[in-house]
Amino acid sequence: MVRVTIWNEFWHERHEDVPAQLYPSGIHEFLREKLSCDDFAITTSWLDKDEEQGLSDELLQNTDVLIWWSHCKQDVLRDDVALRVARRAHDGMGFIGLHSARNGKPFRMMLGTDCSAVWRDWNEKTRVWCTSPAHPIAAGIPLSFDLEGEEMYGEHFDIPRPDDLVFVSWYAGGEIFRGGVTFTYGLGKIFYFHPGHERCRSFYNPHVIQIIKNAIYWANPVPKKDISGGRFVEPLEPIANAERK
Amino acid sequence: MVRVTIWNEFWHERHEDVPAQLYPSGIHEFLREKLSCDDFAITTSWLDKDEEQGLSDELLQNTDVLIWWSHCKQDVLRDDVALRVARRAHDGMGFIGLHSARNGKPFRMMLGTDCSAVWRDWNEKTRVWCTSPAHPIAAGIPLSFDLEGEEMYGEHFDIPRPDDLVFVSWYAGGEIFRGGVTFTYGLGKIFYFHPGHERCRSFYNPHVIQIIKNAIYWANPVPKKDISGGRFVEPLEPIANAERK
Amino acid sequence: MVRVTIWNEFWHERHEDVPAQLYPSGIHEFLREKLSCDDFAITTSWLDKDEEQGLSDELLQNTDVLIWWSHCKQDVLRDDVALRVARRAHDGMGFIGLHSARNGKPFRMMLGTDCSAVWRDWNEKTRVWCTSPAHPIAAGIPLSFDLEGEEMYGEHFDIPRPDDLVFVSWYAGGEIFRGGVTFTYGLGKIFYFHPGHERCRSFYNPHVIQIIKNAIYWANPVPKKDISGGRFVEPLEPIANAERK
Amino acid sequence: MVRVTIWNEFWHERHEDVPAQLYPSGIHEFLREKLSCDDFAITTSWLDKDEEQGLSDELLQNTDVLIWWSHCKQDVLRDDVALRVARRAHDGMGFIGLHSARNGKPFRMMLGTDCSAVWRDWNEKTRVWCTSPAHPIAAGIPLSFDLEGEEMYGEHFDIPRPDDLVFVSWYAGGEIFRGGVTFTYGLGKIFYFHPGHERCRSFYNPHVIQIIKNAIYWANPVPKKDISGGRFVEPLEPIANAERK
Repeated sequence: MVRVTIWNEFWHERHEDVPAQLYPSGIHEFLREKLSCDDFAITTSWLDKDEEQGLSDELLQNTDVLIWWSHCKQDVLRDDVALRVARRAHDGMGFIGLHSARNGKPFRMMLGTDCSAVWRDWNEKTRVWCTSPAHPIAAGIPLSFDLEGEEMYGEHFDIPRPDDLVFVSWYAGGEIFRGGVTFTYGLGKIFYFHPGHERCRSFYNPHVIQIIKNAIYWANPVPKKDISGGRFVEPLEPIANAERK
Repeated sequence: MVRVTIWNEFWHERHEDVPAQLYPSGIHEFLREKLSCDDFAITTSWLDKDEEQGLSDELLQNTDVLIWWSHCKQDVLRDDVALRVARRAHDGMGFIGLHSARNGKPFRMMLGTDCSAVWRDWNEKTRVWCTSPAHPIAAGIPLSFDLEGEEMYGEHFDIPRPDDLVFVSWYAGGEIFRGGVTFTYGLGKIFYFHPGHERCRSFYNPHVIQIIKNAIYWANPVPKKDISGGRFVEPLEPIANAERK
Repeated sequence: MVRVTIWNEFWHERHEDVPAQLYPSGIHEFLREKLSCDDFAITTSWLDKDEEQGLSDELLQNTDVLIWWSHCKQDVLRDDVALRVARRAHDGMGFIGLHSARNGKPFRMMLGTDCSAVWRDWNEKTRVWCTSPAHPIAAGIPLSFDLEGEEMYGEHFDIPRPDDLVFVSWYAGGEIFRGGVTFTYGLGKIFYFHPGHERCRSFYNPHVIQIIKNAIYWANPVPKKDISGGRFVEPLEPIANAERK
Repeated sequence: MVRVTIWNEFWHERHEDVPAQLYPSGIHEFLREKLSCDDFAITTSWLDKDEEQGLSDELLQNTDVLIWWSHCKQDVLRDDVALRVARRAHDGMGFIGLHSARNGKPFRMMLGTDCSAVWRDWNEKTRVWCTSPAHPIAAGIPLSFDLEGEEMYGEHFDIPRPDDLVFVSWYAGGEIFRGGVTFTYGLGKIFYFHPGHERCRSFYNPHVIQIIKNAIYWANPVPKKDISGGRFVEPLEPIANAERK
């Protein structure tokens, strides 16, 4: 059983018409329903849920994989909360960032770079190409599939070199985007996937849902190792002529 | 001509006997002399050089490649100065981190992870193995060479997956360390190399000096591109049926 | 249920004393017993088992993950059989190469490089370090563990850059080795792991067995995609001004 | 001075109208002229130049970087000649494969995979996006540039995971292609770049020429190391309790 938490900013769906129609209970509840299966115990949470912005230490400690959607309220997230999320990911929690999550504090904290990209929210035709067909996140996904409309995110995508380049998207307007990428962060595994603009129907697409499902299994942490550093260690082998202190 | 700045914390050499004997004018001046050649215009700088901790914006703007040595005064470096270094690296300046630079603020800011490792400063036998023999940073370096004594830095080395794993070190005490690694940070290229403890003679080793020289050429920025994001872009191709705003 | 086939050269165990004592029924049967669990349906096979050198097309088609041990009879394997193995791996079968498998025809065919290394079979102390602690192949494995004696395989290891560097080994004699590495080959996933000399007890080590078990799960193929090329495709979008033929 | 050899199949330009008009002396001579500069000593060669198919051992031994164009006569190249090219690349010679070179014997020999892709030779609008803006092969190249018409090569591109993904191309017909990729092969560095169909004008594009120039500098071999394996080595450190033979 994977303990999944879906965290959503949950602002657009309560303040704008199109998002409200597409996702009346919020993107988090929509995803919960779509992802629901026997293997996942899913909790939802959101920015103004509680004093801890829906990300209490207790919730994070009981989360194996955190799915993250955020957009226009990135700056409202407190630094200490963002840091708490990042530290928990470092400790092994999987992190799946959707759409503008790349601009969110936790994602940028974890990757170090700006994670910026150019954009155009014209709901244009988008085609997702799989560039790692043997990757578990791509299981059951065709070599390419279409999104009838999505916000364009374009290069340069200011990320470190990804571990795996799972998907690259083609846009009608002429751009490409390395929009499905994985990273390792301490003991945590990160997957970023670009679809999911609040005024687009990408989360209605079964391939998008399947990819997120696959990513949950993939990001589920393995048994934990001690990777702590910053400490003296005795030698494992006898050392001749060393200046023991 | 590559404009090289060697920045040093310059504390040990003024307060401790062994470093003072090994590097009487400081590690920065020692490296300046060893690296000196017609292709490099070398400036040295240090933590208490001036109000800007030796890292003024003017100096950074005139630096192509910054060599960094720091150790026990990591916390004395101001956050704003560390950020200035990181932003300049993002903008294309090469960054070569030596020894404890991995614990320094700029390096950790750029990589996102803790960059921690275990350690043992017994001056033990260390052997540097080249795992990327075709890499320009390894040009002219044998497949392995010895350091008669060095501080051990051991795994787990908490870094993102490096672009290139150029060197892995073997220690008499039983550890290995991914001690020669490259990263990309925006337009900047980063090389980290573990030798150079203040009480060891690694900078007297011609292979170590050659590696730093090679890394300077490698990290010298290429002509700059505009990689800025966070902005709307017009489509490059006409888009049918898009919801133009 | 993963259909696992363990293929062994099975020469040393029938012709040399120490291997015969360590693995009286052959390394393949020893591994079968150790790996046995409810999730795996394990078949064993060997070089002189049948006319097809124990690698009939029927067997390969019914194999999800192939474990391979070979050493002194690499040249006895027919080229057409090696090619059959490689093509099946390309089609999605996982391939786990143990010890001298790196010198075997299928492994070299798949990787392209020589896969050569230096060696010393003195049964020396070896320590396996995990350099990807979040990797599923490292699940449940400590950050390092010892092999009391193993044949040394040393750098330069002539392989392409691996996808993941999961383990690096330390040897008492002064070498290091990138001895646990993954690759992708078409739709197939490859893991190479260096322990397992015929005169050493590495397969008695529970960590080694756990790593092979983990690798079986990891290499189990995902649902297959059509990645065939070499063919014309109609455009997915209308093309203006193209020279249609 | 880099000793560059440009090898061309040189069939289309002598047998077909459009190639003959675009490249009357052959693609090799066209590229020689465009790449000519003080740093390069350029030789041209072609398939029916001599008994050695223009790839004598003497020529290869005196080549630092080999540029390769081939298409419809891939099978005419003798296996022994292809192997000779691959071995010389393994020994350190840089290899720059253009367009259908990916289907040529040397390239496939070096990479191990099929190197297949789907295609459509409709001379359609193609846009080359740089995904590694700090890479030396991208020096002086804008973040994207257009090719007015090119043959589409599309995913899946059956290559191992590249070392660097320097360029990804966008096609009007809806595909993307990882069309600018680097690999390491022994001591040799490989760059593959997709433009250059015999009926297109891509080699007239100054960005394409600049990229090839950059790649020549990048692929120029560094001083050679001994990476030979398959041999016993004495230990570098004394080994206690080893079973010396």
